[in-house]
Amino acid sequence: MIRVGIVGISGFGGKVLLDILLKHKDVRITYVAANSTTGRVDDIWPEFRRRTDLVCTKYDPAQAIEHCDLLFLALPHMESMKIVDPLLKAGKKVIDLSADYRLKKTSLYKKWYSAEHMDRKNISKAVYGLPEIFRAKIGKAKFIANPGCYPTAALLGLAPLVSVQGSNVASVIIDAKSGVSGAGRKVAEGFMFCFVNENFKAYRVLNHQHTPEISQYLGIMAGRELPTVFVPHLLPINNGILETIYVSLKKAVSQVRLEDLYRKFYKTEPFVRVMPNGVQVEIKNVVNTNFCDISISLSDDRKLVVITSVIDNLVKGAAGQAVQNMNIMYGFEEQEGLL
Amino acid sequence: MIRVGIVGISGFGGKVLLDILLKHKDVRITYVAANSTTGRVDDIWPEFRRRTDLVCTKYDPAQAIEHCDLLFLALPHMESMKIVDPLLKAGKKVIDLSADYRLKKTSLYKKWYSAEHMDRKNISKAVYGLPEIFRAKIGKAKFIANPGCYPTAALLGLAPLVSVQGSNVASVIIDAKSGVSGAGRKVAEGFMFCFVNENFKAYRVLNHQHTPEISQYLGIMAGRELPTVFVPHLLPINNGILETIYVSLKKAVSQVRLEDLYRKFYKTEPFVRVMPNGVQVEIKNVVNTNFCDISISLSDDRKLVVITSVIDNLVKGAAGQAVQNMNIMYGFEEQEGLL
Amino acid sequence: MIRVGIVGISGFGGKVLLDILLKHKDVRITYVAANSTTGRVDDIWPEFRRRTDLVCTKYDPAQAIEHCDLLFLALPHMESMKIVDPLLKAGKKVIDLSADYRLKKTSLYKKWYSAEHMDRKNISKAVYGLPEIFRAKIGKAKFIANPGCYPTAALLGLAPLVSVQGSNVASVIIDAKSGVSGAGRKVAEGFMFCFVNENFKAYRVLNHQHTPEISQYLGIMAGRELPTVFVPHLLPINNGILETIYVSLKKAVSQVRLEDLYRKFYKTEPFVRVMPNGVQVEIKNVVNTNFCDISISLSDDRKLVVITSVIDNLVKGAAGQAVQNMNIMYGFEEQEGLL
Amino acid sequence: MIRVGIVGISGFGGKVLLDILLKHKDVRITYVAANSTTGRVDDIWPEFRRRTDLVCTKYDPAQAIEHCDLLFLALPHMESMKIVDPLLKAGKKVIDLSADYRLKKTSLYKKWYSAEHMDRKNISKAVYGLPEIFRAKIGKAKFIANPGCYPTAALLGLAPLVSVQGSNVASVIIDAKSGVSGAGRKVAEGFMFCFVNENFKAYRVLNHQHTPEISQYLGIMAGRELPTVFVPHLLPINNGILETIYVSLKKAVSQVRLEDLYRKFYKTEPFVRVMPNGVQVEIKNVVNTNFCDISISLSDDRKLVVITSVIDNLVKGAAGQAVQNMNIMYGFEEQEGLL
Repeated sequence: MIRVGIVGISGFGGKVLLDILLKHKDVRITYVAANSTTGRVDDIWPEFRRRTDLVCTKYDPAQAIEHCDLLFLALPHMESMKIVDPLLKAGKKVIDLSADYRLKKTSLYKKWYSAEHMDRKNISKAVYGLPEIFRAKIGKAKFIANPGCYPTAALLGLAPLVSVQGSNVASVIIDAKSGVSGAGRKVAEGFMFCFVNENFKAYRVLNHQHTPEISQYLGIMAGRELPTVFVPHLLPINNGILETIYVSLKKAVSQVRLEDLYRKFYKTEPFVRVMPNGVQVEIKNVVNTNFCDISISLSDDRKLVVITSVIDNLVKGAAGQAVQNMNIMYGFEEQEGLL
Repeated sequence: MIRVGIVGISGFGGKVLLDILLKHKDVRITYVAANSTTGRVDDIWPEFRRRTDLVCTKYDPAQAIEHCDLLFLALPHMESMKIVDPLLKAGKKVIDLSADYRLKKTSLYKKWYSAEHMDRKNISKAVYGLPEIFRAKIGKAKFIANPGCYPTAALLGLAPLVSVQGSNVASVIIDAKSGVSGAGRKVAEGFMFCFVNENFKAYRVLNHQHTPEISQYLGIMAGRELPTVFVPHLLPINNGILETIYVSLKKAVSQVRLEDLYRKFYKTEPFVRVMPNGVQVEIKNVVNTNFCDISISLSDDRKLVVITSVIDNLVKGAAGQAVQNMNIMYGFEEQEGLL
Repeated sequence: MIRVGIVGISGFGGKVLLDILLKHKDVRITYVAANSTTGRVDDIWPEFRRRTDLVCTKYDPAQAIEHCDLLFLALPHMESMKIVDPLLKAGKKVIDLSADYRLKKTSLYKKWYSAEHMDRKNISKAVYGLPEIFRAKIGKAKFIANPGCYPTAALLGLAPLVSVQGSNVASVIIDAKSGVSGAGRKVAEGFMFCFVNENFKAYRVLNHQHTPEISQYLGIMAGRELPTVFVPHLLPINNGILETIYVSLKKAVSQVRLEDLYRKFYKTEPFVRVMPNGVQVEIKNVVNTNFCDISISLSDDRKLVVITSVIDNLVKGAAGQAVQNMNIMYGFEEQEGLL
Repeated sequence: MIRVGIVGISGFGGKVLLDILLKHKDVRITYVAANSTTGRVDDIWPEFRRRTDLVCTKYDPAQAIEHCDLLFLALPHMESMKIVDPLLKAGKKVIDLSADYRLKKTSLYKKWYSAEHMDRKNISKAVYGLPEIFRAKIGKAKFIANPGCYPTAALLGLAPLVSVQGSNVASVIIDAKSGVSGAGRKVAEGFMFCFVNENFKAYRVLNHQHTPEISQYLGIMAGRELPTVFVPHLLPINNGILETIYVSLKKAVSQVRLEDLYRKFYKTEPFVRVMPNGVQVEIKNVVNTNFCDISISLSDDRKLVVITSVIDNLVKGAAGQAVQNMNIMYGFEEQEGLL
């Protein structure tokens, strides 16, 4: 039984963390904090009435250190980097759900997040928390940079092909569609019901901050840089991401070989499901779960692979994956709290 | 060809007015203003690109008076009352879509809108713009208080019964459900997509500001005060209102007589449709139209009438009805611009 | 560890039962059947891939009896009554989610379900599975008639008032709104996306088959017949019911006394949450949970009570309540599988 | 004033045709028919109560010929080809909204629609009704093959680039997303509310019947075959299509040149709007209109163009474009009925 804290309870990521951790048999939530909101957690999120008496206080590092073995940081970018260092120095384990420690080059951080990084020395300590690729490292890690939602769906959708046939990949185009909760609990006209419902649009075309995160880890898996195009869209649903990924190959492959590649790659993975041939993934099948579902199609000339990959952006794309990482770090059963 | 102005173009009501008036063959839009937003109208509402070159300026009474014969005020309450008087004095006709001139007693205004009325003397000049009840007065009016969305559906649903059998009515309960655009273009967490979608709730139970407006005009129609209960709810749709109205009668009536009453009452009305017996109204049948559809059911003991009444809150509940009133005021064909 | 079977896995109720029972630590699912659909459960419901290897077969009483201690019947009405008797005779416990054993009078069954009852002798053996009212009987029961979704929200919303002040109640009007899954997995034009989305309507006005079920149990709680009006509506959401209940009282009550009554009544109930004064229930707070949330408001003259009551129609309104009943029958922890 | 008939009134395309033609000042609807449904049109579509007294009869060629100058065929594919020939022989003009006369090669028809074409000789007489490309031919046409919804958005989005820089295009990937009405008024589980709402999926990946239609006309515009990939998805909205189109170029272009190309190409087009640089198209801006909005973005290496194109699938993608074609054929004002 470890003692865990959630920092950033007022956001959607914090809420889903709370939901999962309350059901987790190996942890006790001993600390809940936020930057601005304070008070009973079930006043902040009325759905938790009768489920918890936790009280959220303004974040205080001394209290976090005193009460917790592990801290989940469900904060906006630029906020995590202000509080990570003292926690690590105090020997605490940290799982950071923000984007602050995912990019290895601070120049990229500056370019895509329009800000200087303020905690450079801890970047190299962060292990990228994508268990299907980096499970061994996660098992020994003290500090996890939990992947972004779009990158999770993209990297899991591409990992088998790019890892095994990296030199055969000519180009990658990722057409991504996300539910509204991906934008966080932001109060802005663009996320008002009447501006989202019965609507659909692309945004930050070729310009989204998750692009370099995807490129970086595709590059690591492929062993070389891969030209990657990323275009996100806003779906009129609460939760879920579907990415349609177009991979141009230099040499043709067969559908059988491709499927075989995917099935072998994910054979023992508890949270990745490769669909039977001809069956398309659907967002509804993964909402409220930690699963990533993947379908693979091949063009007639067998040189274009179309991969569809779905996750719940708040679960496998955020809080669920964070708990999966914790389970690996502590040797808990990997599915605990997540099934 | 009259010259009309729209004040408050940046709200939903202003947008629908623009859409209708651009198609209206008897008017020219000569002035468009708002309190804060300015600039090309098709920057404010991109759906109007290629449909208009109008430019919105900050409201200026001198310009309004110079350029217009009639002004539509699509402003929040408390704003219309600041600008009506000079317009009327200058001999302009005014159709006010706000709540400012609907209540005859300023004490009620103060109670329900938590503010002192600032233009008491013009209240009595305002004709309540519900054509099905007050067409004759509207025809001679210079100043119209355009009805609220909830009151429109309620009053049209109740008018035949209350007007003809007012003394037989024991009590009225109105259970109202509205789409989100009824709240206006308000940026607040409660109207964010993730807080409305897949959700439903009552709000301002027994406490909504449209209650006294409904009571006042029911009273006028019945010739006596009627005890009226009003509970609104928020539907996860953009546009449309359905009200389910429960009327307890003192003496039993027959279904035939009831339907006959409704059909006769609305026989010549271009925008009210009484459904055939057994057919229920649906919001989708009136969205983007100026129609009010009404169904009537009767309990086994024939002493409880259940009326369902639907409108598009922005059309028959606001901009469409405003144009209908204009058509009546100027002797245009009543359906012009509205079919 | 008991052995349970689910009959009717291809419906929504069966699906949610499966989801809950797979997580329940005291049961093993040993039998899954349906009337028409057969095959792997994760082909019927792809969201269960990797969660179960269960195979659905055509219902066979001998197999059900051999493999199970308890059977959940998630069947349409008219279907359960054909298979209950042999199961009870074989000493099996049965929780029936259909409407077949809820009405005590077969004349009412005939009137509202347009069919003769085919298993009259077992009707009296069925205990109505509303734990908050009939927990003691459920604890000793072998056969449960699990309540309908609308009746659950209505009866829990009304129970304190009707049980304690039954003689003070003059009339009850229930304006109910349900998500689409309440209609079951029925393929009909009225439930197609384009006919439900951006729409809202009443249906079966004063004529819905849940009416006598509500009346019967209100009568039992009040100790006398209560005139009850019930009007359901179809909400454009997947799951959830909100009922707005208008209770006319003969004598005035105070808000304090009313709230006190509700809080005391539900003080020890794990799944009923009475909202703080002024806070309205919302469907989103109970979706995917077994909770029923209740708000209470009072008119100025203190003679009209407005109760809003929300549940998830598939959980507290069906599968969740069924599991809660099982937990009580077997002495398991009442919240097991449901939090 | 010409006399027009609508065959296929019970489908969504027929409904929108009716709505537009009722407002059109140069036509009179003199004949309405369907294959199976008959009766008053406002019983088939209750939203038309008080708007029309038209009665739908079973299709009869003699009546169609007697009563109409022009016939709109809003039928499923395989149905139009059975009735076109007698109409043309009788000297009637025909606008066919089905797919039957769009493909020039009957071998392609057989491959993609799994059926033999039954009216080969009239295929060559059909003019493809995309006014922005084929206006001159349409002006002289007697028989129009009205474009499919997906092809309309794709071809308009690609026309300037492909027409002017066809030899520079290396490959085209079209990631298309459509609202549910695109599937027609089909009653099938996959289009039920609970299976579409809060969901999103790809379907017929690399296998959709609109693929050869897109390829054929891209080829005509480019003057050579263009490798084209097409993947459609199902959006949880009623109406609207957004296509995100990825065009790989052989030689780099500049953003300025690209935009200039698009603006010039569509300069005089009444229904195509090229967005300002940096502004993304949105489905909501074109719903219920005949507009096609287009945004263009360019990658850093200036060799990948990302085009987003939106239309209302039932208006510019079907009925609206059909009326636009009629307007051109008869020399009516091109925007009549459509603004």
